[in-house]
Amino acid sequence: MSTKLNEERAREQLIDLAAEFYDQFAGGEIPHMTLPTRTKSNIEYDPDSGVWVYGDRTSTRSANSVRGARKLLKAVYTIEFLADQLDQGRSSTLRELYYLSESWDNEEAHFSDQDESNQMIEDLEIVSEVTREDFHMRPEESGATLMGPLKLREQTRRGEREIHCQKDVGEGGYQIPNNPDTIEFLDADIDFVLCVETGGMRDRLIENGFDEQYNCLVVHLKGQPARATRRITKRLHDELDLPVVVFCDGDPWSYRIYGSVAYGSIKSAHLSEHLATPEARYVGIQPSDIVEYDLPTDPLADSDINALESELTDPRFQTDYWEEQIELQLDIGKKAEQQSLAANGLDFVTETYLPERLDQMGVL
Amino acid sequence: MSTKLNEERAREQLIDLAAEFYDQFAGGEIPHMTLPTRTKSNIEYDPDSGVWVYGDRTSTRSANSVRGARKLLKAVYTIEFLADQLDQGRSSTLRELYYLSESWDNEEAHFSDQDESNQMIEDLEIVSEVTREDFHMRPEESGATLMGPLKLREQTRRGEREIHCQKDVGEGGYQIPNNPDTIEFLDADIDFVLCVETGGMRDRLIENGFDEQYNCLVVHLKGQPARATRRITKRLHDELDLPVVVFCDGDPWSYRIYGSVAYGSIKSAHLSEHLATPEARYVGIQPSDIVEYDLPTDPLADSDINALESELTDPRFQTDYWEEQIELQLDIGKKAEQQSLAANGLDFVTETYLPERLDQMGVL
Repeated sequence: MSTKLNEERAREQLIDLAAEFYDQFAGGEIPHMTLPTRTKSNIEYDPDSGVWVYGDRTSTRSANSVRGARKLLKAVYTIEFLADQLDQGRSSTLRELYYLSESWDNEEAHFSDQDESNQMIEDLEIVSEVTREDFHMRPEESGATLMGPLKLREQTRRGEREIHCQKDVGEGGYQIPNNPDTIEFLDADIDFVLCVETGGMRDRLIENGFDEQYNCLVVHLKGQPARATRRITKRLHDELDLPVVVFCDGDPWSYRIYGSVAYGSIKSAHLSEHLATPEARYVGIQPSDIVEYDLPTDPLADSDINALESELTDPRFQTDYWEEQIELQLDIGKKAEQQSLAANGLDFVTETYLPERLDQMGVL
Repeated sequence: MSTKLNEERAREQLIDLAAEFYDQFAGGEIPHMTLPTRTKSNIEYDPDSGVWVYGDRTSTRSANSVRGARKLLKAVYTIEFLADQLDQGRSSTLRELYYLSESWDNEEAHFSDQDESNQMIEDLEIVSEVTREDFHMRPEESGATLMGPLKLREQTRRGEREIHCQKDVGEGGYQIPNNPDTIEFLDADIDFVLCVETGGMRDRLIENGFDEQYNCLVVHLKGQPARATRRITKRLHDELDLPVVVFCDGDPWSYRIYGSVAYGSIKSAHLSEHLATPEARYVGIQPSDIVEYDLPTDPLADSDINALESELTDPRFQTDYWEEQIELQLDIGKKAEQQSLAANGLDFVTETYLPERLDQMGVL
């Protein structure tokens, strides 16, 4: 099992990290840990992998101040907790880690809030090059689902489950587990992967049988996608060699959803190669669709305009395509939702809009 | 199929309603529609059903004003749309209805925002005594799930699916469909139903095997539960004669979650008998648990205090139990989350807290 190997590697990396602090002590050095600076100005495009990664700027957490020493103390306690957790084959949520720290014998090691414990896990991911999932740290489950012609095997704590994501599930679809690396793809009759932002549109596509008619796997993103959703999307692309397209509302927040699928996010730039699918392409709603299909719209709010302007300076959106679309949107001053396609009838999205767009994109 | 019968009845009720407007016209009356007033002061306890229902106060929508006439016009267009939808075996989301109204030939019938179209559907539910689900109007799916020793059959648009909610699902569990009346319970080895507010706690119970050890069905509420989640909970209670207990955070918002499972909500008081499970009981987190188990807490915010005070006057919470708990909480000025039990270790909730509470309640 590759999952098992990942666990062993995760445990070793954590213990190596603790050993490094020990060696620093032993060598007369002040213990410290160096991390890339995590701001927008320190993410850059990596042409080899096609995703955005951290740049060269770094920050150091060092025991030369009380604050820094306390951070390293918390790191060591967290490492011990994670190593034990892996040893026992257990897992826990980020929230549980925060509360659990209250039971640690050294009060200085208790986390003061969940932001702090979340950031600690991210720091340890970056330094150890192991993902949170391999530490067995779970997020709140997102409820994102798959529906389409895919048979998979999931390794659960209660044994293996073989599930076909059309024949063996209800209308709700197959629920993506917190760690999708427990999944093996067995059999796929899929032509492309269609990631969909909203539940209403996901249900429309399923009711209209779009997954059956076009042999596509519908991934419900449920808004900003959880890491598990981005990870399984990437694996579908890489392992099954499938085109991935993303279908969202036509507003700046939805472009960010697309951006996090395709290029990764600032928060998890250290994991871009694990989570991002740079080949993923944007279907719509495009600002040009608002004009072309005369969709019902809402006016842009000030916060929308600010977000669009900030995207114009976001390295992930500095392409001719996005500049043109974003400037068009600022120009027309409007946004539209996926479900606004229903103004042309309930079948318009599956009989006209998606076939036209996917044909233009060369996916059909 | 009872679902099929419901659809026919729904269609008849809608057409009867339109016929009533016609008869009012024909009889020289100004067309109108009478509805119960939907405010907190007009919900009251119905001792027969044990749930909260609307009182005697009513409001009338009448065509004797332009505004009222427009409302009835929209009602008639909506009725036609719903009757066609049922005729064609289609369904749609609340959001799609709002957008779809843009395609209606009479501009006066277009909805001005989604609140208006949502309220129209609620009005039609109340007057026709048919649920939205039987009109084939879907909400956004909530992603709520089941896990436990239950085998069920779901009638999907693509045929029947038989699913065991432990053996045939991944770690994510079985996804509750938008209309759970498409489900038939086949085989259940369940002692009680445990509704859980947060995903983190749901995952903890599943990881610790609580559903297996205690033969319980874990229903993940995902915060304020969707109608589908409340409906399936009620059916599990009524049809399988199972005790239902609700496990939430210890704060006023979570007591409302319990209240909506047990007694219904103001917004859907017309559906209490369809959705509410008055026999459902509250496990915790209780304010008295915060004291007894010395849980990590946060101070009550002003909004928490206001919400608690408003609950003291909410007819659903006027019992000795809730008055005592709410007053204790106002007194100690603290709230605690489900996951704060982890301060006593990851197994404390399944090995100590829940067994103790369920034993006190006579469920175990």
